[in-house]
Amino acid sequence: MSKSEIAELPLLDAEDAVPCCPPITAGELSQADAEKMAAMFKALSDPVRLRLFSRIASFAGGEACVCDISDIGVSQPTVSHHLKKLREAGLLTSERRGTWVYYQVAPSVVAGMAAMLDLRT
Amino acid sequence: MSKSEIAELPLLDAEDAVPCCPPITAGELSQADAEKMAAMFKALSDPVRLRLFSRIASFAGGEACVCDISDIGVSQPTVSHHLKKLREAGLLTSERRGTWVYYQVAPSVVAGMAAMLDLRT
Repeated sequence: MSKSEIAELPLLDAEDAVPCCPPITAGELSQADAEKMAAMFKALSDPVRLRLFSRIASFAGGEACVCDISDIGVSQPTVSHHLKKLREAGLLTSERRGTWVYYQVAPSVVAGMAAMLDLRT
Repeated sequence: MSKSEIAELPLLDAEDAVPCCPPITAGELSQADAEKMAAMFKALSDPVRLRLFSRIASFAGGEACVCDISDIGVSQPTVSHHLKKLREAGLLTSERRGTWVYYQVAPSVVAGMAAMLDLRT
C-alpha cells in the first residue's frame, strides 16, 4: 500500500465503530464487557503512550513509521514497550515494510471507545 | 435540586465538552495535556470502576445515590475507594443530601474525553 493510498483511507463515523461494548449509559455492563473496555482505557492511561498514540494519529492516514516517532524524548526500548501495549489493546496495528515497522491507528476501535463515552445515546 | 429537575438536565453536545485537551489527531500533545488526559483514561481503566461509572451514568440525569449502586458485588470500602478515584479524576461529582451521598456524572468531562477520541476532527 503506497503512502498516497493510505492518506486517502476514509475516516470512520461513529456508526462504523467496532461493536465491542455498549455505551456506558446502556445499563449495567457485563463483567466481560467491562474487562474489554477497561483494557482499552488502560492502554491510554499513560502520558508517554498517549503522546506516542497522538503522534501516530496526527500523521496522514493515522499511520507513521517508527522512525517518525522515535524523537519523543524516551529511549527506544521504552517506545517499543509502549507501542506493543497499544497494539495488544487493539488501538494500533503494525506492518513491516522493508527496514521499518509502520504503525497505524485502528480507527474503528478508537471510534468504538468514543461511542461508549457518548452520553447522548 | 429535586429528582425531577435532575432528570431534565440537558445532555451536552460534543461542542459543550470541557476544553481540557486537543483531539488526539491535532498534533503532538504537550506533556501537561498528556498527563491530564492519561489521568482521565486511568480512572476508567479498572473493570469494577467502569461498572460503577456505567451504573451511575445509566440512572436518570446521570445521578445515583450510593445506596442504588452498592449491590455491584464488591465490598462497601471498595465501592467507596473507586467512587473517590472517579471523583478525583473529575468524572463524577458528589453531594450529600440527608443520609445519603449522591454521585453525578460530569457530562462535559465525559464529552471532552469522547471529543479527544474523535478521529473526524
